[in-house]
Amino acid sequence: MRAIGIERGAERPALLEVPRPDPESGEALVRTLRVGVDGTDHEVIAGHHGGPPAGEDHLVLGHEAVGVVEAGAGPLEPDDIVVPTVRRPPNGEGNRYFERGEADMAPPGAALERGIDGAHGFMSEYFTSPAEYLIEVPADLAEWGFLVEPISIAEKALELAYASRSSFGWEPETALVLGNGSLGLLTVAMLRADYEVYCVGRRDRPDPTIDIIEALGATYVDSRETPVDEVPAVYEPADLVFEATGYAKHAFRSVEALGPNGVAALLGVPEPWTFEVDGGRLHKEMVMYNKAVVGSVNSGPRHFRAAVDRLAAMPEWFLEDLLTRVVPVESFEAAFEESKTTIKTAVEFEP
Amino acid sequence: MRAIGIERGAERPALLEVPRPDPESGEALVRTLRVGVDGTDHEVIAGHHGGPPAGEDHLVLGHEAVGVVEAGAGPLEPDDIVVPTVRRPPNGEGNRYFERGEADMAPPGAALERGIDGAHGFMSEYFTSPAEYLIEVPADLAEWGFLVEPISIAEKALELAYASRSSFGWEPETALVLGNGSLGLLTVAMLRADYEVYCVGRRDRPDPTIDIIEALGATYVDSRETPVDEVPAVYEPADLVFEATGYAKHAFRSVEALGPNGVAALLGVPEPWTFEVDGGRLHKEMVMYNKAVVGSVNSGPRHFRAAVDRLAAMPEWFLEDLLTRVVPVESFEAAFEESKTTIKTAVEFEP
Repeated sequence: MRAIGIERGAERPALLEVPRPDPESGEALVRTLRVGVDGTDHEVIAGHHGGPPAGEDHLVLGHEAVGVVEAGAGPLEPDDIVVPTVRRPPNGEGNRYFERGEADMAPPGAALERGIDGAHGFMSEYFTSPAEYLIEVPADLAEWGFLVEPISIAEKALELAYASRSSFGWEPETALVLGNGSLGLLTVAMLRADYEVYCVGRRDRPDPTIDIIEALGATYVDSRETPVDEVPAVYEPADLVFEATGYAKHAFRSVEALGPNGVAALLGVPEPWTFEVDGGRLHKEMVMYNKAVVGSVNSGPRHFRAAVDRLAAMPEWFLEDLLTRVVPVESFEAAFEESKTTIKTAVEFEP
Repeated sequence: MRAIGIERGAERPALLEVPRPDPESGEALVRTLRVGVDGTDHEVIAGHHGGPPAGEDHLVLGHEAVGVVEAGAGPLEPDDIVVPTVRRPPNGEGNRYFERGEADMAPPGAALERGIDGAHGFMSEYFTSPAEYLIEVPADLAEWGFLVEPISIAEKALELAYASRSSFGWEPETALVLGNGSLGLLTVAMLRADYEVYCVGRRDRPDPTIDIIEALGATYVDSRETPVDEVPAVYEPADLVFEATGYAKHAFRSVEALGPNGVAALLGVPEPWTFEVDGGRLHKEMVMYNKAVVGSVNSGPRHFRAAVDRLAAMPEWFLEDLLTRVVPVESFEAAFEESKTTIKTAVEFEP
């Protein structure tokens, strides 16, 4: 069957011919519909993150997938629409994180990540997965189901952020989303009903992401004009900061962007970068204003389920505008092209 | 009546003669037994923090008090032993923090602090307080009741830390307490039943705080030999870091001292201090390992109540060793002397 993968040492993904997998006991066989592409894929392709399974010379890409069950398992029956979670036990052996259903809390080394690190992804005509790692999606969301994974990433970060504020009466009103990539925009769409939302980017108008931010009723903040730590003075303090840029200075400036009792959720994965901070001031701010910073990676089954509901509530126009292009598998290269007008791309298999 | 206070511009506390307060409606009159001295008092005396009530030229010190009710109010009756909470509404006007019983979550400016900022403290023969701000203490804890306030500070920080880890199955085993002052030692005593505890200081042996740490079954870590970020390599990673030093570099190094899914609670209040950090690495650590950092200040009624139970469970030998000296009010100067062998002091009024 056809698969899109990256070969060890290669600089670009390639169309590979790989064997169609046979489901083992407890596994479903899934026919792939669409697979989204995100920043992590680009990091994997660049060799900055993850890599092929042990002993193999290529990695099938793709961790944002939606497919249709061909051979059921557990509660899953043929024609069910499903989205796979990403993490799998290393060496097929579980550990306490998997036993708890919280593989997302496993540290690096205690989990493989399909399509990213040590396990083949979903960008192939078929894939298999234990039923426990497949989340059902209503049939009418099949075409958008590849967005469940990125939405689940935001769900988990928000869950950790809210948990950190759960010991007192927290009534957040203002959210600052750092990053106007697809994850940032999905998060703006998630938060806009409950928050006054600001979204930070560094782009000139006209720009399709700025159009989406404003159409969602949020305010675009150009960080070249207003650095993150100046947002409270120019706009207003944020109760919640959602960092989805991987720009490390944002993480530190977030503390000053927060209002009293606020929380910053960090999701980006920057490279090492040494710079000066007023550490005394940041430390004091954290304490005197009861602020919190939480890091968050990956997501688990409950976040996927919450993401399905969240996706169902998103307006069609937003999803249409977010999705720059869907390309058939034979034109996969176009899904990996980055440009100023590209927001989100996906590879489509037999529809 | 006699009170210990700091006059505006003075460098040392003085014995003052002030009017005995008359309880207003809803207020109890409390005869003071003991008042502890801590680092915040020294900061107030040095003029680095807080100050007298608006329009007054002195501040009665003391925020760690225990006393006996002379004139009751609400549920309080004469002879009840009580400990006062510290924060009071500014201008006698409440706000949403006070309305929720969560004055500890009020930002600076939305609360006065008795004995610290804008309201007289408890280091006087008598004080008055609305009954709602007085926490009952069993009579047999009267002599140690002044420790309820500092213990409550740790209770709140732990509450925020635990809340931040409440969305997943967190099973912490190792705690790293930064600081071997009285708050650090009280925290070691609080955590030792549930954690393998390490306590960081920068003192040579022989030292009374190191003796206490070891007698509590904890391990003393000299940060001059083992910086906080090297604790995982030399000892083990910490699930919980409790920072009680105000040393800003500790706050940043704490992130690297944590194991996967760990949380650092910051309590210190440093001055501005600019230094270099590998912000990229810290940011990535936070994300990839789902780490959290929470700041915490002050404490509320439920933390005081928890602290009463916690105090009751502390061994007598520990309290005796912690309390370096108790001085009668006429010798109050000795309670403010700092030395390498001073851990905790208190001023005693008529016993």
